[in-house]
Amino acid sequence: MSFRTDLAVELKPDIHKKTGGVSAFQEQYGEITVTTIEVENEIGERLLGKPKGTYISFALPPLLEESDSAPAQSIITARLKKLLPKQRGCALVVGLGNRAITPDALGPNTAEKILATRHIKEELGTVEGLEALQPVAVLSPGVLGKTGIETLELIRGAVKAVKPSVVIVIDAFAARESERLGNTVQIASSGICPGSGVGNSRKAVNQSSLGVPVISIGVPTVVDAATLLADAAGEQAAESAKPFGREMFVTPREIDLIIHRAARLLARVLNTALQPAYSWEQIQSLMA
Amino acid sequence: MSFRTDLAVELKPDIHKKTGGVSAFQEQYGEITVTTIEVENEIGERLLGKPKGTYISFALPPLLEESDSAPAQSIITARLKKLLPKQRGCALVVGLGNRAITPDALGPNTAEKILATRHIKEELGTVEGLEALQPVAVLSPGVLGKTGIETLELIRGAVKAVKPSVVIVIDAFAARESERLGNTVQIASSGICPGSGVGNSRKAVNQSSLGVPVISIGVPTVVDAATLLADAAGEQAAESAKPFGREMFVTPREIDLIIHRAARLLARVLNTALQPAYSWEQIQSLMA
Amino acid sequence: MSFRTDLAVELKPDIHKKTGGVSAFQEQYGEITVTTIEVENEIGERLLGKPKGTYISFALPPLLEESDSAPAQSIITARLKKLLPKQRGCALVVGLGNRAITPDALGPNTAEKILATRHIKEELGTVEGLEALQPVAVLSPGVLGKTGIETLELIRGAVKAVKPSVVIVIDAFAARESERLGNTVQIASSGICPGSGVGNSRKAVNQSSLGVPVISIGVPTVVDAATLLADAAGEQAAESAKPFGREMFVTPREIDLIIHRAARLLARVLNTALQPAYSWEQIQSLMA
Amino acid sequence: MSFRTDLAVELKPDIHKKTGGVSAFQEQYGEITVTTIEVENEIGERLLGKPKGTYISFALPPLLEESDSAPAQSIITARLKKLLPKQRGCALVVGLGNRAITPDALGPNTAEKILATRHIKEELGTVEGLEALQPVAVLSPGVLGKTGIETLELIRGAVKAVKPSVVIVIDAFAARESERLGNTVQIASSGICPGSGVGNSRKAVNQSSLGVPVISIGVPTVVDAATLLADAAGEQAAESAKPFGREMFVTPREIDLIIHRAARLLARVLNTALQPAYSWEQIQSLMA
Repeated sequence: MSFRTDLAVELKPDIHKKTGGVSAFQEQYGEITVTTIEVENEIGERLLGKPKGTYISFALPPLLEESDSAPAQSIITARLKKLLPKQRGCALVVGLGNRAITPDALGPNTAEKILATRHIKEELGTVEGLEALQPVAVLSPGVLGKTGIETLELIRGAVKAVKPSVVIVIDAFAARESERLGNTVQIASSGICPGSGVGNSRKAVNQSSLGVPVISIGVPTVVDAATLLADAAGEQAAESAKPFGREMFVTPREIDLIIHRAARLLARVLNTALQPAYSWEQIQSLMA
Repeated sequence: MSFRTDLAVELKPDIHKKTGGVSAFQEQYGEITVTTIEVENEIGERLLGKPKGTYISFALPPLLEESDSAPAQSIITARLKKLLPKQRGCALVVGLGNRAITPDALGPNTAEKILATRHIKEELGTVEGLEALQPVAVLSPGVLGKTGIETLELIRGAVKAVKPSVVIVIDAFAARESERLGNTVQIASSGICPGSGVGNSRKAVNQSSLGVPVISIGVPTVVDAATLLADAAGEQAAESAKPFGREMFVTPREIDLIIHRAARLLARVLNTALQPAYSWEQIQSLMA
Repeated sequence: MSFRTDLAVELKPDIHKKTGGVSAFQEQYGEITVTTIEVENEIGERLLGKPKGTYISFALPPLLEESDSAPAQSIITARLKKLLPKQRGCALVVGLGNRAITPDALGPNTAEKILATRHIKEELGTVEGLEALQPVAVLSPGVLGKTGIETLELIRGAVKAVKPSVVIVIDAFAARESERLGNTVQIASSGICPGSGVGNSRKAVNQSSLGVPVISIGVPTVVDAATLLADAAGEQAAESAKPFGREMFVTPREIDLIIHRAARLLARVLNTALQPAYSWEQIQSLMA
Repeated sequence: MSFRTDLAVELKPDIHKKTGGVSAFQEQYGEITVTTIEVENEIGERLLGKPKGTYISFALPPLLEESDSAPAQSIITARLKKLLPKQRGCALVVGLGNRAITPDALGPNTAEKILATRHIKEELGTVEGLEALQPVAVLSPGVLGKTGIETLELIRGAVKAVKPSVVIVIDAFAARESERLGNTVQIASSGICPGSGVGNSRKAVNQSSLGVPVISIGVPTVVDAATLLADAAGEQAAESAKPFGREMFVTPREIDLIIHRAARLLARVLNTALQPAYSWEQIQSLMA
C-alpha cells in the first residue's frame, strides 16, 4: 500500500459483508453515518492491516459549517460508553501529539478541556452534589522529539501512579481522502501507535503494552501530500512531495479553527461519557 | 496557467537574458541565491503576468535547519534599502493576513515585532541617543472576512493619518513548488494584491491605489493543493483538491515554527532597514 | 481623588437619590444587580468626575464559578439594545487594548468573536435566510505604543470608510475594588478614554470626536496596585507600588480564564443585540 | 511571618556574617548582584525557614529594559554548573506550573525551549559533531488541578524511566518585594515545594523524595496581594486581598513579556550548562 491512513473506514472493507475475519456495517442517523468495523482475528488483521478490535467511525457534517454539535456529541458518547469497561475505576485520559504543531495539537488541546477529578474525589468526596463524580486523571505526555522520553514510558509511569481501569488516548489522525479532514471521528478499542499516521511510528499504546484496556479517539487533520499525489498520479509522483526529506501535509486553510472545534467536541464527548451522572453544563461549571 | 504562485521567480523568465520587457539576472552569495526580475513595461506585464516593477527573490538555506540568519538578514536588508525612497519621511508598515490561520499569520506576526516610533519621535525627539530614530508606524488591518471592511480602505485611512513617504506591506505568499516553502523571501516594488495567492483577490495595494510608493515583502508558506495536483497529474486532478468547495493547502509539518522564524527574520530586516542609525540590539532594547 | 476606577458605580453616588445632576437607581434580577447612573449635566460631571451620559453596571455572579451566563447575557443585551440608535445603519465594533497583555486583551479578544457582515450584506443580501442580517464592521486598532498611531485616528479612518450609525468600543477596565474583577459589566453612552483607567489617557473616543454616537462596554480586569495600597494604608503607601516607575497591577490568579469568559459573554451580548433577527446558534454557525 | 516569599534573599539574613547555621555573602559583577546563602544545618533551617542547601540569587537589570542578557546568562550558567554533579549521566529538566496562567507559565515555557537529547544520543551518537551531546530529557507534568495526579508522582515516573543523575526543576516564584519581579533569578540545591509560593503547597520535589539531587531554578513573577498589603498596612489589611476566597496577585503590566524573556534567559542558561561542548548557536540549530 502506497498511501497512509489512520482510518479503518478508508481501508474499504465491504460494508454489510462479512469476509474472513473482518465484519463491517453502516448506520445512518440523520446527517451522521456510523460505520462499525470489527477486526476479529489474525486473518482480519492481515486483511485490513489493523490490529484486532472494534473501529467505529462517525462521518459528520463539516465541523466548520455546523456549530450545533449536539447530535454528533450524543451519538458518539453513546458508542464510547459501550466500549468503556463495565466495572469502572479511574479513567486515565491521554492527549497525544505536539501542541506547537497546529494539526498535531488535537490531543493536548482536548486533554486540557477534560475535568480531572481523581484528586477532588479524594479530597471532596463528601461534598453534596459531587458524590457521583467518577475519578478521572489527565496526561499530556508531549512528543519524543521534545522530551527525549518515549511516550509509552511516560504513560506507563502515569498508569503505575493512577492504576486506571481504562486508558483513553486522544490523537490527531492522517486520512487518505481530504474530504474527511475535520469531518470524521474514529473510536477504536485497540489503542494506538502514536505517530503511525504521520511518519514517526513509535511503540504501540495498547492493552498489551499497558496492561489495561486502551481506547483511542481522534479526528483526521491532515492528508500526507505523498498520499494525495500517489492517489492522483501514481507512486513516483509522491516523491516530489518530500523536498529536503521533509514531509508535506495537506490541510484545509481553516485548520486552526477545525482543531478548536474538534477539541471542543471530543472534550464534550469524553466528559459526558466519563461523568454519566452530570450534564455538560454541570461539568463545565466544575472546570473553573 | 493552471497553477498559482505569488513568486515572480517561479514564472521562469530566462535568467541572464533580456526578453521583450522582462530582464532577469541571478547572483550567488555563499548559500544564498538572489534573483532580480525587472518587469519593464506593458509587454513585460503580459509576458510574466505581474505588474511593472522590480521583484527580488532570495533563496535561503532552509529556515528550519539554520538558526544563524545573519547573512540572509544583511543581504536582504541591503536590497530593501535600495528600494526605499531617498527622501525619507514616515514609513507605514502593514502586516496583511489573518492571525488566526497559521500560514496566513506572517504579516501580523511580523508587524508586532516592528518598532513603532512615530509617536516617540514626537514626544522624545530630544532624548539623547534617540535623535536619529526615523518615524515608523505599524498597522495590522485584519482580513475582510473578520472586519467587514476592505483592507485597502483601512490602509487608506492610516495613510491619511500618517502621511507616510512609503508603505511596506508584509504578507504570506503561495508558491508553486513546495521546496520554496519557508526558504524564500521576495521583495517587490509593485505592491501587492492581498489574498491573490490564496484565492481571495482583493483590490491591489499599490502606488496607484494609495498615492505613495508601496513595497511588498513576504515568504511563501503554502502551496495550493490544486496546483500540486495539476503539476503532478494534470488539471483534472486538481479538482479533487477542493472537497466541499473548500481549498486545501500544502504546508510542511513544522509550519508554526517556520512562521515564527520567518517573522523574526523579516522583523530584523525591516527594523534595521528603517532605522539605519541603530544596531539590531539597540532596536530590540527600545521595544520593551 | 487618589484612587483610579473606570466604573461609575464605584464613585458611590447615593443610590435611589437624585442629587444635583446625578441620578442613580438599582434593580435586582435574581443574582444580578443592575445599577443605572445618569450624569445629567455639567454639575453632575463635576460631582462624579465622569462625562454626561448613562452608565449601567451589572454585578454578576463570579464569571469563574458560573458557566451558565444565559441570564447575564439576556439582561445585558436588553439594556444595550435600548442604548442603540432607533434608526440603525451599520454598527462599527472596536476592540481596544493590547492583545499581548493578558488583562488588556479583552477588547481584541471580544472583537474577533463578533460576526462581521458589512461585506456579506453587500454580496449575499439576497441569500435566503440572510436577508435580515444587519451590517456590522469590526476593528482592532491596536495600541499607540505598538502602532505609533493614535487609536482615535485609526477609528476615524474606519468611521470614514464605514459611515456607521453607531460605534461600540470594547475595553478592559480598572476597578477600585478587587471583588469586582471579572464580575461586573459596564455599558456607557458616553464613549471612552482609551487607557484612562490604566494610566495612559489618550484622546476620548466619543460622539464629539467621531460625529456618531459611541457606546462603551467592558469588564474590570485589574486594580491599580497604588489604588489598593492607598485604600488600605493611605496615599504615601501607594508610592511603593511603582518600582522603577513601572506600574503594578492586581489581578486574580485566573485572569487568563476570566478574559476568556468575559470575551465570550460580551461577544454573545453584542452579536445578539446587533442581529436581533437571529439566535446565538445561528450567528455562531455563520462565523465559520 | 505574615508575608510569603520563595526567595531566600528576601528572608534578610545578615550579609557577610555567619550566624548559627546560616552564612551569606554578596558579590557584584557589573550591574549584577550575586547573593549566596548557605543553610548549613537544622539550626539554619529554623532560622531562615528554608531547608538545608545553597541558595544563589542574581539581582539583574530589569529584564524588560535590557535585551542583552549575555552577562546575566554567563554568570548564572557558571554558578549552575558548579551545582551539577561531577559525574554526569542524564539530566531530567522539569517545567513546573500551569501554562494557561501567565505568571505561572515560566516552567512549561522554559521547558519547551530545552534541547532534549536523550533519544538522539541513543540514535545519533555516532554522527560527526554530535558525539559530545550530553543526554537530557524534558518533562512538563502540568498541575494537580488539571491532571488529577500529584506532580511528584509524575516526576517519579519519569525518574524511573530516565534514571537521571540530576533533576532540575524550573518554576515561577512569589516575591515579597515587587521590585524583584522579573529582575531576579534564584538557583537552589534543595529542590522545591511546587506551589509553595503561591498557596497550594504540594509534596516537596527534592533529593529525599526522588533519590537523586534536585536543583531548582526560577524567577519571581508575582507578589501575593495579601503580602503587599500586610507590608504596607498590617496583617488585618491583608484580608481585603481575598475577595470570594480567591487570591489576588500583583504583577507588572508587562508580565506576558517578562515571562517570555525570563523563559528565554533560563533556557539559554540551562542549555549551555547542560551541553558544555556546544555554543548557544549550535544548540539552537539542533532544536529545529
